[in-house]
Amino acid sequence: MTPFLRPQYRSLKPYTPGEQINANFIKLNTNESPFPPSPKVAEVLKSGIADRLRLYPDPTLGQLHRGVAQQYGLNEAGVIAGNGSDDVLAFAIMAYAGGGGKLVCPDITYGFYPVYADFFGAELATVPLREDFTINPEDYAGAGGTVVIANPNAPTGILLPLAEIEQIIATNPDNIVIIDEAYMDFAGQEHSAVSLLGKYDNLIVTRTLSKSHSLAGLRCGFALASKEIIADLNRLRYSFNPYNLSAITIAAASAAIADTEYYAERIATINATRERATAALTQLGFVCTNSQANFIFATHPKISGEELYNALREQKILVRHFALPRISNHVRISVGTEEEMGALLEAVRVSLSVEG
Amino acid sequence: MTPFLRPQYRSLKPYTPGEQINANFIKLNTNESPFPPSPKVAEVLKSGIADRLRLYPDPTLGQLHRGVAQQYGLNEAGVIAGNGSDDVLAFAIMAYAGGGGKLVCPDITYGFYPVYADFFGAELATVPLREDFTINPEDYAGAGGTVVIANPNAPTGILLPLAEIEQIIATNPDNIVIIDEAYMDFAGQEHSAVSLLGKYDNLIVTRTLSKSHSLAGLRCGFALASKEIIADLNRLRYSFNPYNLSAITIAAASAAIADTEYYAERIATINATRERATAALTQLGFVCTNSQANFIFATHPKISGEELYNALREQKILVRHFALPRISNHVRISVGTEEEMGALLEAVRVSLSVEG
Repeated sequence: MTPFLRPQYRSLKPYTPGEQINANFIKLNTNESPFPPSPKVAEVLKSGIADRLRLYPDPTLGQLHRGVAQQYGLNEAGVIAGNGSDDVLAFAIMAYAGGGGKLVCPDITYGFYPVYADFFGAELATVPLREDFTINPEDYAGAGGTVVIANPNAPTGILLPLAEIEQIIATNPDNIVIIDEAYMDFAGQEHSAVSLLGKYDNLIVTRTLSKSHSLAGLRCGFALASKEIIADLNRLRYSFNPYNLSAITIAAASAAIADTEYYAERIATINATRERATAALTQLGFVCTNSQANFIFATHPKISGEELYNALREQKILVRHFALPRISNHVRISVGTEEEMGALLEAVRVSLSVEG
Repeated sequence: MTPFLRPQYRSLKPYTPGEQINANFIKLNTNESPFPPSPKVAEVLKSGIADRLRLYPDPTLGQLHRGVAQQYGLNEAGVIAGNGSDDVLAFAIMAYAGGGGKLVCPDITYGFYPVYADFFGAELATVPLREDFTINPEDYAGAGGTVVIANPNAPTGILLPLAEIEQIIATNPDNIVIIDEAYMDFAGQEHSAVSLLGKYDNLIVTRTLSKSHSLAGLRCGFALASKEIIADLNRLRYSFNPYNLSAITIAAASAAIADTEYYAERIATINATRERATAALTQLGFVCTNSQANFIFATHPKISGEELYNALREQKILVRHFALPRISNHVRISVGTEEEMGALLEAVRVSLSVEG
């Protein structure tokens, strides 16, 4: 750290991304899709787009915003895209909790929320999940600050029913409520808070193409909200990086979003694989949450989370372990292909027999 | 603006990007290259990279950092890439001037610096350029805050000699000095502050691929500094968006940076065109700065900047006019192809005859 760094950033604890190693590992640690993106993405890349890269991208992100709006039956003034959903989450937390505001979230959730609170100078208030890792909506009534809820939650995968999401929004008329639906495509649109957007002016829903759309490498997410909230967020975007998405990301993401049929099939496959793998793990003595996301959150009475993580790693399978209170005996396993999950289960059996 | 927006962001004046319109205009307003990027970029896009987009990009940006380091004869620990150079400029201004610090820059320069000061809560101190639009390095001695200097400066195109850049750095041992070299590839590497990096621990040099590398649409820039400064900036990057570059941007930018021969030729062509167009404008009565960048900054005694901008726009040629003190009678004209500059000169002649 240099002596030049401003005092408020000297104690930052940056986010720790999951390991990105490739060589010979079965990679089930960062909730990527095991399937390639829509073939429409490859078509965009082969369409001669390189020659248009000399020009700046459209800072209004019009093509992408129109595509997203059409997909969700919204007006394009209610959409803002980001360089990953982290980008729009950051803008939303800065706008509504930054510089001395307050951010309220569960004690167990996406690890970036506390980092953003710290980064933007917001006070962080964490609310413990219930013993069974579910969210009690009553805990958030009149939260006194911006609320952010991942639904389904990470890393538990547990879905909060839409009625309880609405309860949180309705009991916070003076606060912004951000529902981070990074994994909602796996749970199903009928559970999405998008249907509440017309009803509440304090609601922001965020989405990402990184998981369900097999595009973690492309960096694209978006937020949906009232046009007034989107104008607030654009005020920040135009003060930080108006060209936040490359021309390639705009074009490729637009093509992917339109290919609903391709993704519906892949999502159904991933969900079926999750259910089979969860059943097999349960057979082996694991306790798994009722995950509605593209990962399994599992614990075993006879092996610690860290031991299992290490045992699997030795067998060239990467899962995610969080050395955090309440969940240090769990591992989060991204849902891969049937073959990958077969290999995982075999490696789990080996791990249990060695450790047991 | 919603009532939820935090008070400190309510008065933000966001950056105004140049107009991005395409239909039938000769676009000389945002300093894009008239040439396509290196053919190596198209090769990357056609290499089957789409199928790897399901995976997160490497958050260490290793491939790109190594490529940049090799190009400049530096260690990769002295490089940080951003989603455009705006991204790294933002991190640097936040790190060293944010939250109550001070940012010092010329009164006439890149319009994003004051926006960043405002956005990150830094006090802005502007230093007037001399009458002839040159920077007086003595004005910056012991600046009492982070200094940012664009060299060549924008929108004047004037190059500050390396000895005077060094004077600013040497007389600010307690302050970070950022030299924004967005246009330095056109002026020539012998003028770059990169050669001072080993000598000063308070120096940051930023670069972009948007101009000289014909890649405005790809979004890639980088900062070069001591490994300690780069560690500071990574602390911020990992607290905001560790996956700030897409896998495509990482791969395509790396390929472009390596193709020095291709770009050297294009830069020589652009510089030759700039000199010819500047001479022709001077013949027509314009006063042009001695621009070392890929644009011309020109004023005419008989037509105001706004009138000329509008007259050219009517003839489907887009240049940039800044309605700002001291430069409102200038226009900034990006250097296009010889044909585009021929059309510009013809349209200028028409404008002068109509207005005169």
